[in-house]
Amino acid sequence: MRLPLRNRVWLQLTGDAKGGGRLTGANWALATVIILAVLSSILATEPELHKRFEHEFRLVEILFGLCFLVEYAARIWTAPEAPGPGTDWEKRWAFLKSGLGLIELVVLIVTFLPMFIPEVAVLRLIRLLRLMMIARMGRFSSAFNEVLSAINERRFELYVTIALASFLVLFGATALYLAEGHVQPDKFGSIPRALWWAVITLTTVGYGDVSPITPLGKMMASVIALAGVGLVAMPTGIMAAAFSEAMQNHRKRRGKGE
Amino acid sequence: MRLPLRNRVWLQLTGDAKGGGRLTGANWALATVIILAVLSSILATEPELHKRFEHEFRLVEILFGLCFLVEYAARIWTAPEAPGPGTDWEKRWAFLKSGLGLIELVVLIVTFLPMFIPEVAVLRLIRLLRLMMIARMGRFSSAFNEVLSAINERRFELYVTIALASFLVLFGATALYLAEGHVQPDKFGSIPRALWWAVITLTTVGYGDVSPITPLGKMMASVIALAGVGLVAMPTGIMAAAFSEAMQNHRKRRGKGE
Amino acid sequence: MRLPLRNRVWLQLTGDAKGGGRLTGANWALATVIILAVLSSILATEPELHKRFEHEFRLVEILFGLCFLVEYAARIWTAPEAPGPGTDWEKRWAFLKSGLGLIELVVLIVTFLPMFIPEVAVLRLIRLLRLMMIARMGRFSSAFNEVLSAINERRFELYVTIALASFLVLFGATALYLAEGHVQPDKFGSIPRALWWAVITLTTVGYGDVSPITPLGKMMASVIALAGVGLVAMPTGIMAAAFSEAMQNHRKRRGKGE
Amino acid sequence: MRLPLRNRVWLQLTGDAKGGGRLTGANWALATVIILAVLSSILATEPELHKRFEHEFRLVEILFGLCFLVEYAARIWTAPEAPGPGTDWEKRWAFLKSGLGLIELVVLIVTFLPMFIPEVAVLRLIRLLRLMMIARMGRFSSAFNEVLSAINERRFELYVTIALASFLVLFGATALYLAEGHVQPDKFGSIPRALWWAVITLTTVGYGDVSPITPLGKMMASVIALAGVGLVAMPTGIMAAAFSEAMQNHRKRRGKGE
Repeated sequence: MRLPLRNRVWLQLTGDAKGGGRLTGANWALATVIILAVLSSILATEPELHKRFEHEFRLVEILFGLCFLVEYAARIWTAPEAPGPGTDWEKRWAFLKSGLGLIELVVLIVTFLPMFIPEVAVLRLIRLLRLMMIARMGRFSSAFNEVLSAINERRFELYVTIALASFLVLFGATALYLAEGHVQPDKFGSIPRALWWAVITLTTVGYGDVSPITPLGKMMASVIALAGVGLVAMPTGIMAAAFSEAMQNHRKRRGKGE
Repeated sequence: MRLPLRNRVWLQLTGDAKGGGRLTGANWALATVIILAVLSSILATEPELHKRFEHEFRLVEILFGLCFLVEYAARIWTAPEAPGPGTDWEKRWAFLKSGLGLIELVVLIVTFLPMFIPEVAVLRLIRLLRLMMIARMGRFSSAFNEVLSAINERRFELYVTIALASFLVLFGATALYLAEGHVQPDKFGSIPRALWWAVITLTTVGYGDVSPITPLGKMMASVIALAGVGLVAMPTGIMAAAFSEAMQNHRKRRGKGE
Repeated sequence: MRLPLRNRVWLQLTGDAKGGGRLTGANWALATVIILAVLSSILATEPELHKRFEHEFRLVEILFGLCFLVEYAARIWTAPEAPGPGTDWEKRWAFLKSGLGLIELVVLIVTFLPMFIPEVAVLRLIRLLRLMMIARMGRFSSAFNEVLSAINERRFELYVTIALASFLVLFGATALYLAEGHVQPDKFGSIPRALWWAVITLTTVGYGDVSPITPLGKMMASVIALAGVGLVAMPTGIMAAAFSEAMQNHRKRRGKGE
Repeated sequence: MRLPLRNRVWLQLTGDAKGGGRLTGANWALATVIILAVLSSILATEPELHKRFEHEFRLVEILFGLCFLVEYAARIWTAPEAPGPGTDWEKRWAFLKSGLGLIELVVLIVTFLPMFIPEVAVLRLIRLLRLMMIARMGRFSSAFNEVLSAINERRFELYVTIALASFLVLFGATALYLAEGHVQPDKFGSIPRALWWAVITLTTVGYGDVSPITPLGKMMASVIALAGVGLVAMPTGIMAAAFSEAMQNHRKRRGKGE
């Protein structure tokens, strides 16, 4: 009775096998573990938390490592269930060489390596890649492709607006460099320095660490801000529209398909 | 002649009874009292005002309390007017156990309790909940349901864009943590700390309490700001579109219905 | 030959007389004078400029005053040309009592009064009202009405979104008052004080004069910023959509009419 | 065999000659050189970089100058290939007098002049104009015209919204000048000074160098920010919509044409 079990495990691990495109229970569990592992690696970068809960962090990392190890082993074990020709070991080797197989190996390494070399702990965030691999399965995959093709269709708009926005950012930086370069040399003393001001102003973030102080600089900055804020927002606006359109198409097709 | 009066009071208290879905005079009066009570509890948190007008605040709170008490009593008294089977006292008990009945009780408690325990005065803002109960009556109720169903229909878009935005916020925080963690350890010394910067930058709030100071950090922050500002705005954009669509449908249906 | 001249002057002063809805030459000239007068009254508030060019400012103000005086006299003189029954003096009195007549009188007063009482010079900005009176003539008037009716049609959406945005601003202020009221009492020590933070954050202005400093406050502020920025922008988004729709209708109708 | 070569060079230099509207290989190469030249002139304004790589900057500028010189010579040489009547030298003179010919001359001058007068190095950014000349060729040209005509069609909306936004900025500045002019005379002491605050607030940049500090000023600023942020964004929103519409039309026409 060994084969049916291997087959059931394989079906649980690969969401594709199910028709509806829904994630299986095992994948939901795995996604939860990965999200917890990502959260743990985020919190572990905080020195105060890390000092206080050093043992706890080590413990959960070992637990996450075991989970990933079990999953990796299960995938290698069940790899022969994949359709197509080839012996069991050929299929296993194919899985090890595949994108998913390599990422799983990397995730395993970054889980255990920082236990010996603590400096590389930040690498654990690579686990997010693993999360994306799960998200790509099932119906997210087709939605993702539709978004990409919608963006591709509007690439001409994107080029033009990115060019316009870049030009405006550069123009703003040059204007303020000329107007305030001699007054605030550390902030506007060169165009690369003034570019920081231009980006932070035209995205309307406006930290306030760099701002013009002369009447001429303020007048120029006012005109550039009034004219530019909308222009710089256009490429992202176009991408948002493309995304929204792709999602509507996706919904319609799924509506018909089901 | 006792019944007709009770019936009229009940009709005034429950807006639903009227066909058009408009609020009754009593409900408008009640809404005004609640808004004034909310304003009073907001202003009372200001120490300077509270010290100067301590007696006045106490007086108006007693007045508001009386209003709520009268309303609560009136609702209990008129509860038997509600359609359906059951004795008068069963209906009264049903009202006391209902959502509205419980909220009214809580509002009464938070109005009188701070007169003895001043520390809990901020609880008086729970009155806002009471205001929402009124708003839910009449035609706001159906509009609200349409908004909810429009958002529910686009939940897939919301998931995807929230995931993308979260990923970008996390990516930005990690990038700046790596770039400036050693230069500004109190601001970028861990990913949780850098997340504050990422959220405030990508929502374009940009307080300026945290901003990169090294050329590498500034370059990374520029790229992240230019690319991310639109992405982070997408979930709210989708919700705004869903709201707008739902409102148009609501208008059309009301146009036909009347 | 006195009547034809008066008639021609009247036609020049009242743009309505011309069919196409275009402003007459006299109105363009007048608009230019008013814009210059507004600019002059703006610049005159700047102490440094005012001290240096005191005589020049006085001179141009006298010139503007003469222009307005001549216009006022011309309108009184030509008032009898208006269609409808009534003697010459009845029509003149009607003009003096009309909105335009009263505003012209006020503009005249605020032009000459600050020459004796300099403190009221800022009143000269009332001239902007005069500019709007001109803008309301001709085709701007019908466009303006269409914008108003488009906004009126969507007043329900406006109510709902303004209520939601107000609630969120209030909720954010309360949350930060509870989280940081004891840490930064001068900034979050009461809900009215925290409201300043909430408005400046949720409009994404983010001056940085007030921002949370505790981890709890930062977490709350992050969530509120991510969720609220889009909500607070919704009422203005709805008004923008109404405006855009009204303008398109206006364009279509003009396209058919001409 | 001299003529065919000259003809081939001319076809490479002028993208127009090719039907599909695509840029030729020579134009792509030229665009790359110009972008590199622009980047070099940006980086050269940074004093630290300039000091360290002075010789390298001089060297690449000479290389860029040679490229532009070769191109200029090639265009003069091949000018007779242009269709139309006239002798070879008449056509060459026509090219020298044309917009492109003059800009190429200016670019050459600003490349070599700063080698003798370093103060004018910033003029090298004029090269961006040259880049735009290339972008105007081919299919960008027709797209650009469509954008211009779409904006032109909506010029009435633009006038109205720009007027409204200007009025709001001026109104906000006046309100804060009256509210805080005596408290912060250096920041709100005149309307021109308060305008800086109004522009930076209503574009939501919000540096924080100027912000109200009195309760009255904060209340006014809150109301103005809540009401104005959307209004000030409307002109750019209209231009973005016009751009988006023009791009869709452009795509449709190209789809039919090809």
